[in-house]
Amino acid sequence: MYSVTVRDHFMIAHSFRGEVFGPARQLHGATYVVDLEMRRPQLDVNGVVVDIGRAGSALHAVLAEFNYRNLDEEASLAGKNTTTEVLASEIFKRMVQQIHSGALGSSAQGLTSMRVTLHESHIAWAAFEGELSTPPAG
Amino acid sequence: MYSVTVRDHFMIAHSFRGEVFGPARQLHGATYVVDLEMRRPQLDVNGVVVDIGRAGSALHAVLAEFNYRNLDEEASLAGKNTTTEVLASEIFKRMVQQIHSGALGSSAQGLTSMRVTLHESHIAWAAFEGELSTPPAG
Amino acid sequence: MYSVTVRDHFMIAHSFRGEVFGPARQLHGATYVVDLEMRRPQLDVNGVVVDIGRAGSALHAVLAEFNYRNLDEEASLAGKNTTTEVLASEIFKRMVQQIHSGALGSSAQGLTSMRVTLHESHIAWAAFEGELSTPPAG
Amino acid sequence: MYSVTVRDHFMIAHSFRGEVFGPARQLHGATYVVDLEMRRPQLDVNGVVVDIGRAGSALHAVLAEFNYRNLDEEASLAGKNTTTEVLASEIFKRMVQQIHSGALGSSAQGLTSMRVTLHESHIAWAAFEGELSTPPAG
Amino acid sequence: MYSVTVRDHFMIAHSFRGEVFGPARQLHGATYVVDLEMRRPQLDVNGVVVDIGRAGSALHAVLAEFNYRNLDEEASLAGKNTTTEVLASEIFKRMVQQIHSGALGSSAQGLTSMRVTLHESHIAWAAFEGELSTPPAG
Amino acid sequence: MYSVTVRDHFMIAHSFRGEVFGPARQLHGATYVVDLEMRRPQLDVNGVVVDIGRAGSALHAVLAEFNYRNLDEEASLAGKNTTTEVLASEIFKRMVQQIHSGALGSSAQGLTSMRVTLHESHIAWAAFEGELSTPPAG
Repeated sequence: MYSVTVRDHFMIAHSFRGEVFGPARQLHGATYVVDLEMRRPQLDVNGVVVDIGRAGSALHAVLAEFNYRNLDEEASLAGKNTTTEVLASEIFKRMVQQIHSGALGSSAQGLTSMRVTLHESHIAWAAFEGELSTPPAG
Repeated sequence: MYSVTVRDHFMIAHSFRGEVFGPARQLHGATYVVDLEMRRPQLDVNGVVVDIGRAGSALHAVLAEFNYRNLDEEASLAGKNTTTEVLASEIFKRMVQQIHSGALGSSAQGLTSMRVTLHESHIAWAAFEGELSTPPAG
Repeated sequence: MYSVTVRDHFMIAHSFRGEVFGPARQLHGATYVVDLEMRRPQLDVNGVVVDIGRAGSALHAVLAEFNYRNLDEEASLAGKNTTTEVLASEIFKRMVQQIHSGALGSSAQGLTSMRVTLHESHIAWAAFEGELSTPPAG
Repeated sequence: MYSVTVRDHFMIAHSFRGEVFGPARQLHGATYVVDLEMRRPQLDVNGVVVDIGRAGSALHAVLAEFNYRNLDEEASLAGKNTTTEVLASEIFKRMVQQIHSGALGSSAQGLTSMRVTLHESHIAWAAFEGELSTPPAG
Repeated sequence: MYSVTVRDHFMIAHSFRGEVFGPARQLHGATYVVDLEMRRPQLDVNGVVVDIGRAGSALHAVLAEFNYRNLDEEASLAGKNTTTEVLASEIFKRMVQQIHSGALGSSAQGLTSMRVTLHESHIAWAAFEGELSTPPAG
Repeated sequence: MYSVTVRDHFMIAHSFRGEVFGPARQLHGATYVVDLEMRRPQLDVNGVVVDIGRAGSALHAVLAEFNYRNLDEEASLAGKNTTTEVLASEIFKRMVQQIHSGALGSSAQGLTSMRVTLHESHIAWAAFEGELSTPPAG
């Protein structure tokens, strides 16, 4: 299995609902450093997993939908606890849409799975990974 | 699949038995930076893999059993070569006990696998990963 | 010159005032990974720059005043643009107070300078450094 | 499953063929920081995945075949686009040969899979992983 | 003293002249991860060292002059051994020109010193630092 | 000012004397990842700060005097608390001897200062820096 990973980041405000979150129920924020790993069993005719330039641009576009925002007020995330795990799966879903829309080019159709990792600090990170035909469990 | 990882560390003295270890048969030591990755296919009702605060505390408690010790004199490790690999599986086993004891809270019962990685330097690390129902091969 | 550095982090929401900040004028947030470097020309009688345990605890206490908060509503920061640079100098000032209050122990009186670095992402960080007798320029 | 990883690097010049590569079709170069992860379900009699000293030496020997070279002129890579992905699989193949030749010692026969990751910058990396009985798809 | 640092990278081919370089006299290449640290004793009216967006863009433009090139054929570097040290000072000089040209905005006139660090691998890096009124020694 | 830094590591056992060290008075150990920064105002005729190959070899030789040892039994460190700070200055002194002995080559005579940083974990490190004509304060 081959993989390629690109890294980017975004910075948001949010708050959590639920006793378990303690002081994180207050409005606070985070920088998420995001690693998008894309996988396929064989390389395309150019010898790559994906056009890394287009993949990076698509990831940047997806993260721009969150960057510099208060996620508590984002309509597209309404009703969700925007935990690191939830955001990882949300970015996974949006990258699947980017791939299906053709934003990563035709060779991205050969991707079979992805992993999205969000680093929230030097001591904690979360990820969602799945097959490209399988939407993440909500 | 979702995952959450927390990082901590411990510092120990030890020595190895076996020709293959060369000068590492002498009493020396290591800092191990530990990454504990916990996985489950679906999130709990709060939208998390596990209560990260309790997971971090449980990992810290497990590492405290080794921290600032000479592992050559630890009764619980008697007869073992405390290689990075062996310590990774030992920490895995002790974290399983923490989960079963309830130290990580009830939602940790939903965890299906874990990976414990011990970084011994900037150029070498080792890991043990397994299903939560499967004890590591000794 | 000797130095010791300890690392910790905090997670906040805030917004900036000023045309130069563009979309960062919206309410957003950040994880700041903080490196506190403490310096002195000679070591104390124990062979250390400072009691690293007390220094880490004092830094944690200072960061706790910001952690999980919306800085736009922090009275102690009223009227300030809470840029990474401003926060670095603010943490410097509060660490100076910790030292003067005795929270780092008597040997911390031997410290002559400090540097506070705040990493806001994998591609950007800011710092304030100064002599311990010199308050940062506001 | 147990794993051990060792890190090394090499520095090369090369160029790519194909429209998708844009300016990277020009002769340029890269530092590749290489992580070789070796896996097996059970440890050997010494409590290790592999003799880490011999594994590191074998990896260094494999990378030395590329280090300080212009890959466009390497006979062993003729006709290949030496993308990060292709180089990862090439290093995988050469490490398999090292294992079969006995360079990593007899206990390396117990390895069941490997992963070779090449970091080309702080924001991009690629990997090939496979079973040890399975050659990478070309 | 305040500072802000931004990180970017470039990938080049080159070769060295001189016995001391051994196999690095062959055409090879490198990824350089570049940290540009900009310093000033007081913040500007917005509470920043410099407009970080403009600083990042200017650094990117300077690195683009080298990126995806064979430095042995760069007219602007003719006659120079393009060691990591030399490239660090060259990037310093070009950033000074960017500042003087106004590319970083008027508040960048308040910068008093800079440090340019080039990481060539995980185990080696070089830097040039200087006052903004002082050109680097050739 | 120019600088070049090389990274290496060593792994030791030791214990500390003094109330301030708490549980670290027990025999334990550490991995120290060492960064040796060497500085000079002008480059040598080859365009480098120092022969990086010889510098790396000399550093490796110095660290080998400690590597895989119990520092409590090292005659050359008798009577010292082998804190991270003390070890940083000790390595500084031994590197000065290496330079004076010619191990780094004649161009190393142009070095004017050095900084030795020892990373003991992902959250703590210490350093000693000094002029090359000035021995570290004991």
